[in-house]
Amino acid sequence: MFNNRKYANLNVSVDCVVFGYTEDHLKVLLIEQKKISPTIKPMFALPGDLILSGESTDDSAARVLKELTSLEGIFLRQFHTFSDPNRVNDLKDLEWLRSFRENPDERVITVAYYALVKLDEYMPSASSFAEKSVWQDVNYIPELAFDHNQIVEKAIDKLRFEVVNNQVGFELLPEKFTLSQLQRMHETILGKELDKRNFRKSIKKLENLVPLMEKQQGVHHKPGQLYSFAPACLLPEV
Amino acid sequence: MFNNRKYANLNVSVDCVVFGYTEDHLKVLLIEQKKISPTIKPMFALPGDLILSGESTDDSAARVLKELTSLEGIFLRQFHTFSDPNRVNDLKDLEWLRSFRENPDERVITVAYYALVKLDEYMPSASSFAEKSVWQDVNYIPELAFDHNQIVEKAIDKLRFEVVNNQVGFELLPEKFTLSQLQRMHETILGKELDKRNFRKSIKKLENLVPLMEKQQGVHHKPGQLYSFAPACLLPEV
Repeated sequence: MFNNRKYANLNVSVDCVVFGYTEDHLKVLLIEQKKISPTIKPMFALPGDLILSGESTDDSAARVLKELTSLEGIFLRQFHTFSDPNRVNDLKDLEWLRSFRENPDERVITVAYYALVKLDEYMPSASSFAEKSVWQDVNYIPELAFDHNQIVEKAIDKLRFEVVNNQVGFELLPEKFTLSQLQRMHETILGKELDKRNFRKSIKKLENLVPLMEKQQGVHHKPGQLYSFAPACLLPEV
Repeated sequence: MFNNRKYANLNVSVDCVVFGYTEDHLKVLLIEQKKISPTIKPMFALPGDLILSGESTDDSAARVLKELTSLEGIFLRQFHTFSDPNRVNDLKDLEWLRSFRENPDERVITVAYYALVKLDEYMPSASSFAEKSVWQDVNYIPELAFDHNQIVEKAIDKLRFEVVNNQVGFELLPEKFTLSQLQRMHETILGKELDKRNFRKSIKKLENLVPLMEKQQGVHHKPGQLYSFAPACLLPEV
């Protein structure tokens, strides 16, 4: 993949932390590096690439995501740029890079993005994945190549902060949802149980949480009141 | 300045939006570009530089800030990376760059930081400024070089978001402060008046706002109750 493209330069890349959500799990999409020698065990890593000439980093991240998942137009947000001069200094990382790049020792700065997808909508297109990609539970991330563990950690912190502040997450729920579904989404992403009473008290203050004149249907338990979010709740990115 | 330093590469820079706060004003530190020809009028711009070899962008931003202001160890936070392939495409911007760089047409991606300082603590060291730097009110930012107007705008959005979410701002107040001072800080940064009753209602929910057994002294009006912030209120950066 490094041969037929015009890279803007060898100094800037993008990496994507793609979160896959189901009601009970938060997962991250990892790819397995190509095997380059019998002695070097391929590592898992985040999907990423050097940026191409004429591309903004937003464009690069969207391209990487589309190539890997066939998904377009999904939520994708820049969250941090990683620039430690020693971010690639492990011997096996360098050896791996040397097999792909002309100047493997050239320093690369990476602009990191995170994306959010619903796993159940996404599964049907699994065949379009790169052959060696896996959804890995956020609680069981293996050792990754380069500084990718650090990038994943920061992405999780960022996602949790934005969910708590109701900046993201709405896109993971059905259009009409119960407060239990909303709470479950918060709990899954935050990785902890929340007190039902306190959660409802704080969430009901949201101006754009709109109670509907409808209740859940086809459930065995007492049907829950349905809500939706008014679009204005999707605050501008900052 | 471009001659005696080992730049990591010519593709990555940092730019700093330094906010100066007084109770009534929010200002941004701008520098005036060097005059390179009688026909080209120098523009105002943000302080910034290409990153040096061995520097992270955090280090670069701290260096730029120290060189310009003699300030060290002040609040400085990365907020966004700007990478539009056409971010430098104005003729006068290109001409200005050509007089300093070997490859002026080389594309540069910039990692933007914002800093917060108290103007009244900062004024005494004004002589250590670069000769041509000015504090400009955020409401009257002139046309800046490159995409720097866009960078300032995003920095203001980010600062306002973080103040509303009580992520920053504490460092701009005295150790002991009244709720009026806290409200004034929010108003100055947000650029609008806030309803006193609603502000107090929402701010008092902050767990780490600690009422002290003290009142203001030496004021002509009714002395206000003093508060301080418990350090835990300074949430981790995300």
